[in-house]
Amino acid sequence: MKKYLINIEYDGTNFVGWQYQKNGNSIQGVLQNAFSKFLKEKVIVTGAGRTDAGVHAVEQTAHIELKKKIKDKDVFLNSINFYLKKHPISVTKIKIKNKNFHARFSAKKRAYRYVIVNRIASLVLDEKRAWHVRKKLNVKLMEKGIKLLKGTHDFSTFRAAACGAKSPVKTIENAQIKKNKEKIIITFISKSFLQHQVRSMVGCLKLLGENKWNIQDFKNAFFSKKRSNCATLAPPHGLFLLKIYYNI
Amino acid sequence: MKKYLINIEYDGTNFVGWQYQKNGNSIQGVLQNAFSKFLKEKVIVTGAGRTDAGVHAVEQTAHIELKKKIKDKDVFLNSINFYLKKHPISVTKIKIKNKNFHARFSAKKRAYRYVIVNRIASLVLDEKRAWHVRKKLNVKLMEKGIKLLKGTHDFSTFRAAACGAKSPVKTIENAQIKKNKEKIIITFISKSFLQHQVRSMVGCLKLLGENKWNIQDFKNAFFSKKRSNCATLAPPHGLFLLKIYYNI
Repeated sequence: MKKYLINIEYDGTNFVGWQYQKNGNSIQGVLQNAFSKFLKEKVIVTGAGRTDAGVHAVEQTAHIELKKKIKDKDVFLNSINFYLKKHPISVTKIKIKNKNFHARFSAKKRAYRYVIVNRIASLVLDEKRAWHVRKKLNVKLMEKGIKLLKGTHDFSTFRAAACGAKSPVKTIENAQIKKNKEKIIITFISKSFLQHQVRSMVGCLKLLGENKWNIQDFKNAFFSKKRSNCATLAPPHGLFLLKIYYNI
Repeated sequence: MKKYLINIEYDGTNFVGWQYQKNGNSIQGVLQNAFSKFLKEKVIVTGAGRTDAGVHAVEQTAHIELKKKIKDKDVFLNSINFYLKKHPISVTKIKIKNKNFHARFSAKKRAYRYVIVNRIASLVLDEKRAWHVRKKLNVKLMEKGIKLLKGTHDFSTFRAAACGAKSPVKTIENAQIKKNKEKIIITFISKSFLQHQVRSMVGCLKLLGENKWNIQDFKNAFFSKKRSNCATLAPPHGLFLLKIYYNI
């Protein structure tokens, strides 16, 4: 058996999420079916992390173990994408790895992007690919808020009740917000995230942007470590898994 | 009657193009219907320019003349977009103009963007929004080619047979090509363009990128002023009308 790292791009709109579910259309499930049909062997696709229903990936990663040897990467990519052609999923790269490699446990960092389009008019080119917020947001205040999230903290406020992580303490290495005309692009980099952490943080940042919260309200919610003080989750369709980093 | 300038965003995929056609789903037609239903008066939407079937607009502009006075712009945008909600078209801005203003004739410059995704794997997030080119392109050679297009020239090679412009001479004020990972983004700015000019130029640049043409071949085609020497048109779905400039 040989182990391979694959990169995957997908539009999460019509999926129940990354994770295989018996009664739902999952990205993992579609990939496993496509690999098994193509290679005529059972293939388990182990992702670097799960994404929620509706969340997209510019670059998710996963590992697979195959009996068959890959001779030509380009031919391999063309073939697997032929089996995926009915689905908004594409395997963009494949790379051989040693047997100790694990898509999830070998990952050093994860980057997520959250896109808000801040305008009155309904969305077209970013429909289902951004959070449409009509009320003019105060990005300066959101910037102040996001700075507080950097570093090592107890992120219990931003953690889903169902989150299975051992500890609510995580280290956000980078958190930034950029405004480009109507677009507000928020990026987070961390070794790992709690379940719903990014959408929870963005939900709270939006309350700042709307001036419904001031910085003290934001601090109170964050430092209370209580889920009940979190804002409503930002919707999944504005979220993109951007990149998984290895060996850096 | 009051004259207004409107900005419009659209996904051109399922349209016959901007221009109204009796037996086809045009952006202009859908807009005219929506305005007429909403305002209960006949509204003619005069665009700054036409776009082909499949071509998108980040920002097209048009003018309309209305009997009804607009009291609140935000309410107006919400209302017209309510009437457009079944269509991938959004009116993003509205501004009052004097009676001499004309969306097409008052325009000073037009900017177009052409997007190529250069990779083996099939497209997902850019599906129908970029030209998928699998063969690795030589962007350096394309850069050399695009420099030749800047300035005032006879663009007959890049002009559709059906083009109604009086002269094939146009002035390209800016032409640039940028590579960002797999994406190759080509931008052109000119007072106006000939029919199919951008797609024709991109088609020829791609032959350079594929090393099917060298710079001399590109020059020969360009300076021959013969349509028959043009490459195959780049497909419409990679093209975006980016911006129409007024009074600058």
